[in-house]
Amino acid sequence: MIPRYSRKEISSIWEDDYKFKVWLKIERLACQAQEELKVIPKGVAEKLSLEYFDIARIHEIEVDTKHDVIAFLTYVAEKVGVDIRYMHYGMTSSDILDTCLAVQLKRSSDILLEHLKNLLNVLKKKAEDTKDIICVGRSHGVHAEPMIFGLKFARFYAEFKRNYERLKNAQKEISTCKVSGAVGSFTHIDPYVEGYVAKALELNPESIASQVIPRDRHAMFFSTLAIIAGSIENVAVEIRNLQKTEVMEVSESFSIKQKGSSAMPHKRNPILSENLTGLSRLIRSYVMPALENIALWHERDISHSAVERCIAPDACIAMDFALTRLINLIENLIIYPENIKRNLNSLNGLVFSQRVLLELINTGLSREKAYKIVQQNAMKVWENKSHFLEVLKEDSELLEIITLEKLESLFDFTYYTKHIDYIYNQVFTEN
Amino acid sequence: MIPRYSRKEISSIWEDDYKFKVWLKIERLACQAQEELKVIPKGVAEKLSLEYFDIARIHEIEVDTKHDVIAFLTYVAEKVGVDIRYMHYGMTSSDILDTCLAVQLKRSSDILLEHLKNLLNVLKKKAEDTKDIICVGRSHGVHAEPMIFGLKFARFYAEFKRNYERLKNAQKEISTCKVSGAVGSFTHIDPYVEGYVAKALELNPESIASQVIPRDRHAMFFSTLAIIAGSIENVAVEIRNLQKTEVMEVSESFSIKQKGSSAMPHKRNPILSENLTGLSRLIRSYVMPALENIALWHERDISHSAVERCIAPDACIAMDFALTRLINLIENLIIYPENIKRNLNSLNGLVFSQRVLLELINTGLSREKAYKIVQQNAMKVWENKSHFLEVLKEDSELLEIITLEKLESLFDFTYYTKHIDYIYNQVFTEN
Amino acid sequence: MIPRYSRKEISSIWEDDYKFKVWLKIERLACQAQEELKVIPKGVAEKLSLEYFDIARIHEIEVDTKHDVIAFLTYVAEKVGVDIRYMHYGMTSSDILDTCLAVQLKRSSDILLEHLKNLLNVLKKKAEDTKDIICVGRSHGVHAEPMIFGLKFARFYAEFKRNYERLKNAQKEISTCKVSGAVGSFTHIDPYVEGYVAKALELNPESIASQVIPRDRHAMFFSTLAIIAGSIENVAVEIRNLQKTEVMEVSESFSIKQKGSSAMPHKRNPILSENLTGLSRLIRSYVMPALENIALWHERDISHSAVERCIAPDACIAMDFALTRLINLIENLIIYPENIKRNLNSLNGLVFSQRVLLELINTGLSREKAYKIVQQNAMKVWENKSHFLEVLKEDSELLEIITLEKLESLFDFTYYTKHIDYIYNQVFTEN
Amino acid sequence: MIPRYSRKEISSIWEDDYKFKVWLKIERLACQAQEELKVIPKGVAEKLSLEYFDIARIHEIEVDTKHDVIAFLTYVAEKVGVDIRYMHYGMTSSDILDTCLAVQLKRSSDILLEHLKNLLNVLKKKAEDTKDIICVGRSHGVHAEPMIFGLKFARFYAEFKRNYERLKNAQKEISTCKVSGAVGSFTHIDPYVEGYVAKALELNPESIASQVIPRDRHAMFFSTLAIIAGSIENVAVEIRNLQKTEVMEVSESFSIKQKGSSAMPHKRNPILSENLTGLSRLIRSYVMPALENIALWHERDISHSAVERCIAPDACIAMDFALTRLINLIENLIIYPENIKRNLNSLNGLVFSQRVLLELINTGLSREKAYKIVQQNAMKVWENKSHFLEVLKEDSELLEIITLEKLESLFDFTYYTKHIDYIYNQVFTEN
Repeated sequence: MIPRYSRKEISSIWEDDYKFKVWLKIERLACQAQEELKVIPKGVAEKLSLEYFDIARIHEIEVDTKHDVIAFLTYVAEKVGVDIRYMHYGMTSSDILDTCLAVQLKRSSDILLEHLKNLLNVLKKKAEDTKDIICVGRSHGVHAEPMIFGLKFARFYAEFKRNYERLKNAQKEISTCKVSGAVGSFTHIDPYVEGYVAKALELNPESIASQVIPRDRHAMFFSTLAIIAGSIENVAVEIRNLQKTEVMEVSESFSIKQKGSSAMPHKRNPILSENLTGLSRLIRSYVMPALENIALWHERDISHSAVERCIAPDACIAMDFALTRLINLIENLIIYPENIKRNLNSLNGLVFSQRVLLELINTGLSREKAYKIVQQNAMKVWENKSHFLEVLKEDSELLEIITLEKLESLFDFTYYTKHIDYIYNQVFTEN
Repeated sequence: MIPRYSRKEISSIWEDDYKFKVWLKIERLACQAQEELKVIPKGVAEKLSLEYFDIARIHEIEVDTKHDVIAFLTYVAEKVGVDIRYMHYGMTSSDILDTCLAVQLKRSSDILLEHLKNLLNVLKKKAEDTKDIICVGRSHGVHAEPMIFGLKFARFYAEFKRNYERLKNAQKEISTCKVSGAVGSFTHIDPYVEGYVAKALELNPESIASQVIPRDRHAMFFSTLAIIAGSIENVAVEIRNLQKTEVMEVSESFSIKQKGSSAMPHKRNPILSENLTGLSRLIRSYVMPALENIALWHERDISHSAVERCIAPDACIAMDFALTRLINLIENLIIYPENIKRNLNSLNGLVFSQRVLLELINTGLSREKAYKIVQQNAMKVWENKSHFLEVLKEDSELLEIITLEKLESLFDFTYYTKHIDYIYNQVFTEN
Repeated sequence: MIPRYSRKEISSIWEDDYKFKVWLKIERLACQAQEELKVIPKGVAEKLSLEYFDIARIHEIEVDTKHDVIAFLTYVAEKVGVDIRYMHYGMTSSDILDTCLAVQLKRSSDILLEHLKNLLNVLKKKAEDTKDIICVGRSHGVHAEPMIFGLKFARFYAEFKRNYERLKNAQKEISTCKVSGAVGSFTHIDPYVEGYVAKALELNPESIASQVIPRDRHAMFFSTLAIIAGSIENVAVEIRNLQKTEVMEVSESFSIKQKGSSAMPHKRNPILSENLTGLSRLIRSYVMPALENIALWHERDISHSAVERCIAPDACIAMDFALTRLINLIENLIIYPENIKRNLNSLNGLVFSQRVLLELINTGLSREKAYKIVQQNAMKVWENKSHFLEVLKEDSELLEIITLEKLESLFDFTYYTKHIDYIYNQVFTEN
Repeated sequence: MIPRYSRKEISSIWEDDYKFKVWLKIERLACQAQEELKVIPKGVAEKLSLEYFDIARIHEIEVDTKHDVIAFLTYVAEKVGVDIRYMHYGMTSSDILDTCLAVQLKRSSDILLEHLKNLLNVLKKKAEDTKDIICVGRSHGVHAEPMIFGLKFARFYAEFKRNYERLKNAQKEISTCKVSGAVGSFTHIDPYVEGYVAKALELNPESIASQVIPRDRHAMFFSTLAIIAGSIENVAVEIRNLQKTEVMEVSESFSIKQKGSSAMPHKRNPILSENLTGLSRLIRSYVMPALENIALWHERDISHSAVERCIAPDACIAMDFALTRLINLIENLIIYPENIKRNLNSLNGLVFSQRVLLELINTGLSREKAYKIVQQNAMKVWENKSHFLEVLKEDSELLEIITLEKLESLFDFTYYTKHIDYIYNQVFTEN
């Protein structure tokens, strides 16, 4: 991932140095187990320790061997300067490559899960802060009915809570350890070793592997990130819509030195949300190659590798950046209650149309008839810009069905908030 | 989905008739609850029953209203011929559209889950049937090491077991009921109604909805199908690879009247597996629009609808067809033990290279040195087509390190099967 | 494609009857050529004519043969009742399958190209009709600078003109004929036959085929449709944005009997545009399996077939529907000049910020300094809702740099239209 | 793109330094044009020259401004140390961002087009080198008919020639220059400037822009790369299939120090082809976000930016790497004529089945009857492993129809090569 979207905490997990440390750790753990089994003599494992990896040298060896794991093993042999014939005994490259990838994905997930928790907190806070603000609810971008502004945040909260659980599951799926050698048959290595390494790395032993950990697990992981990206876009698009000049119910915070446009000094743009929209597209795109990676030939082919070398860090790092940005964005989101109120009233009472409809039905009209009456009067409001209540008052036919008093009583915003506690309760206290 | 890939059992779930039945059921259940609440008078619900839907008439009404749910309600009103003013009371179209979609997806998933169970059974059977066949394991399409043929099926079994769990989860995610009216705020309808309908339909009440059920749930569902499609392709590609003329370890069954080619009468092609490969691509493709559907504007926009009208039936029906075909394919797969044996030996013993390598290390050689010796001799086999053991025997330097007897003893296939029970146990008895 | 999105004119191209007619035509043409070459006796071709195909019977035969082309040939043999041993002589199934697909895609493209032409006309008309309307241009959803409303349509015109050229190219790419027999080597059939069939069907002979026409051609075709879908979405999203209640600069036309919502009778929703957004997602999704279809094994595998059986009709039919709908939508789009004017002024003159900036630079200020002055005053407008000109007038420092008269003269909308003729000329008269 | 897949020649185009140079060049060119127009005084342009950019300093400024172009302009102002008030006069950020992107994509395309030319040369060479090798053609992975090995390369040649033309077109589409200011209306800048900059940069002026160059152009570019990726995968999969141990008709070259496996020293794996398969998946995946980028809100939103910052360099650099690798791979591909011959004969003459079929039809049998005879005898070959000709000779019924001599004469490989010159001519001499 480009530096612009990389935070050190997570990108360091995907650097060569981190990878080589994990590789060496896996070799060391395997040696410990092999020593216990007396397959190799005591004392090998303890030598397998390096403070520092000369990455340039490792790459140099790889130029010859054209094989990254062999280059690494050769380097380690050079470095620890002792007889390491027993390192990697009975193992195949994928044993360390795939187990290392599991460690990296697991560790990255830990960070992402932490972000999701923080995001849930800020969403909950915003939902509570805006629980008293009545706004207009919109469908199709068009005013529908009054509702509580906080429901937006509550809705996002519930969505990200699902995402949290999904990522928990995906993390579990991806956290498997494979040390079963070529074609995964434990021919040259005892299953005990896999169990040993798995335990030390807090992974689960893979129930059955080919030469590699099966890629449906990884597909599940990237699919989950893609869904979370969809949810991020969902929030981002809501904010972009609410910050449109004509709507302006919210605004991303705008720092003092910030400049919105090189040409137009007046501008305050929802660039964070737009950026999150773009990042979502990016993260979503990783799902296709991840799905195509599932069908490897026979006991493995290496076509998945180029894909994962790119998308595994890219997806994790971009998601980390996006979540961090989203948390910040929500936390500092400015809400304009005045504008919310202005918009709520801007449709001249049409947002009460269903309430009038139902009341007419209550008086005994058929749904069809009631619908027609309300729709006809509503159309007048669209055309004449007069208030819906006033238009209705002029419908003499209507006033034979419903009293003026009753009619006026329907135009009451608080009516729309009666189940707000029920919903908040559902969302914020479930299990 | 085109008729070619549609089985009646599942495609009927996606026909208008089924849909209208569910719609009416939802309306009826809602009326029952509303009657209990005394929001509407007793007796409405029991009238909401229709044996038959005149679909052409409903579509005719829709031409005018340009709204499918209103067309349906109007039709029902025409038909039941009584005062139905209280039908749909306080509800919005999405209450029945989304709840119906949940019913359809849930019912479809039941069928798919049943298929997955059957698939697991045939895979297990094949794994057991081929537990004694030693074959060559391949990585990169190149012979690697001897292994047990049944491990292929065991591996697919484990993969589909994960898929079964994933689909269970996805089904649960998708099985929610939404009856909370416009913008999802329960303004005109009591939450009791949603709970009532949900229970009767064996769905869960949606914890919080906008005007629609949030689309991350559906994205999860289609993503899960996409992953399963990836696994189907995984099996299909394995069979296609094993049925290549030069390999011919397996063959799809070929019926007596079947013709493989209009031009070449000798042909027996793995067309079922190729077809499954294509269907997998198709099912995989549905995931992108499903992910794009998550970010709806405000409390809903209807952009998701066109997508789902197509991909929801298409994905379920194609998956049903693919799984049915796969079960059949595996069940009737012909295995050629003779060819498996021929292939196993065709690399002139090179598949024992690792075993020789490790034995050399055991004798005290460094890994690097041992690797070089084995690789050099292996290259001679590639070039001269002589047997690896014979080549090794001519390496006088080698025979100083290892006895001829020891060397010969290494070329033993049974060595590669020692942990087969352990693996089968892991796969078939876990939890 | 589901009936809801299918227009007869194009969907009929993708029905069995049409397909069988083309198949028979290809066989007949091939026979004509073979007769000329004296490979087969005279008189075969003229017998190959059928008014009607009993599709059920053909499918019945296919149940046995498991091969659709052979089933068809067998059926034709049954029907024409003469010695047809020479039909299909030296050909393979793909010769008729792929050539037929080319005919279907070409014919479908003709329809789509016609739609694009019509779309260009309505866009041009709208561009001309709105050439005098000054509106606010927006970036990031935020008011930027005044501009001409017609530029939106002119921009879409230019985009669809590119799409027209792209589809022309893609049509040409896809319009190839393949009659070269198994593995494409003309072993049993003279190249003359391919040329003959190609000419009669107005296709180009494939320069080199495997057993099938290479699938990069089809990938190009579906990619082109995906790009056009993106452009449709571009227009659709613009309309949805402009029809938002608070913006309301345009509105989809709304028929008298139409109902916007089952619950809220006042609603007029941009459902056509939302539907186009959804259809775009759908059409876009076909590109991935089309791309995956390129890499077929050896001289062909049949994995592409299942994909194309679905996406070829679906993509063409959905695109036909979408374009038809879009043409209608643009043609009947209602534009609200009053609202456009209201919005233009709603930012209290801030849209003139760049003009003020540049004028300050003209007076000799550094860009940095000028930017700061303008931005500071702009921020006051955001906060106090007063007019930008008024705010500037109160900046005494500013008035030392620029005269009041000059300042007032800058707030002139017509200034923003000076190059409109230039642009229209570029767009509508190029080549 | 990760260093592993980055070649300096192309990756340098995507580095900050290159970008800033182009930015400054655009600003300088714009100033030259503005000076000619006397909008700004003479002498500004010539000062806009910098040998070196302090990238860290530019990023530092961006931390405050949160706007990369403004940070750059501020930096330049600091550096050139003169009055630069006229730099960027009347322009907006996208004028330099989008024009720079066009320069980068165009320059990258030049490199890719050069690769494609080289690839065409090596494919042509291989096609010529193998024009005399008769091999078996395969459909469905199963032996079909004899053919010429060189046809494979000729076929890829034709496919990449199409790709060359496509990329030429896409390059042309992407090579547009935009200097029309905010919302693209030339309000503050004369169209002459755009034309001037365009000409100097060898780009075309954009016929009509919003604030940005329309993204359908970029979608076309990335779609084209995705199709080329599909073709690369097509070649890669062919090689992987041909290098399978049992097939072994070709082999990637394998250097002396190379190691195929850390565990199995005998292995020679087609890792380059597998890697190309993975890279193809990756490049293909960029098409979805590129397509989603088309629909920007109003006169622009910035959601496309994050996507392009990643996929533009990634797609170009990965494609450069893939093509370079592919050229090398083809150039050094080892072909094993002996194995090709072995495989050709391995199906015991069944590959002549169509020839026998057609000859039987020639003798007067119906196609159906002839097909049945040939298929029945072919099945015996599958079962008994005897040679097809021998089996046929034992079919006494058959020998009444066709003479033994005639029958034997059919089993002639050279028959399958008669149109090879025609095809080569079509492929290599067209236009």
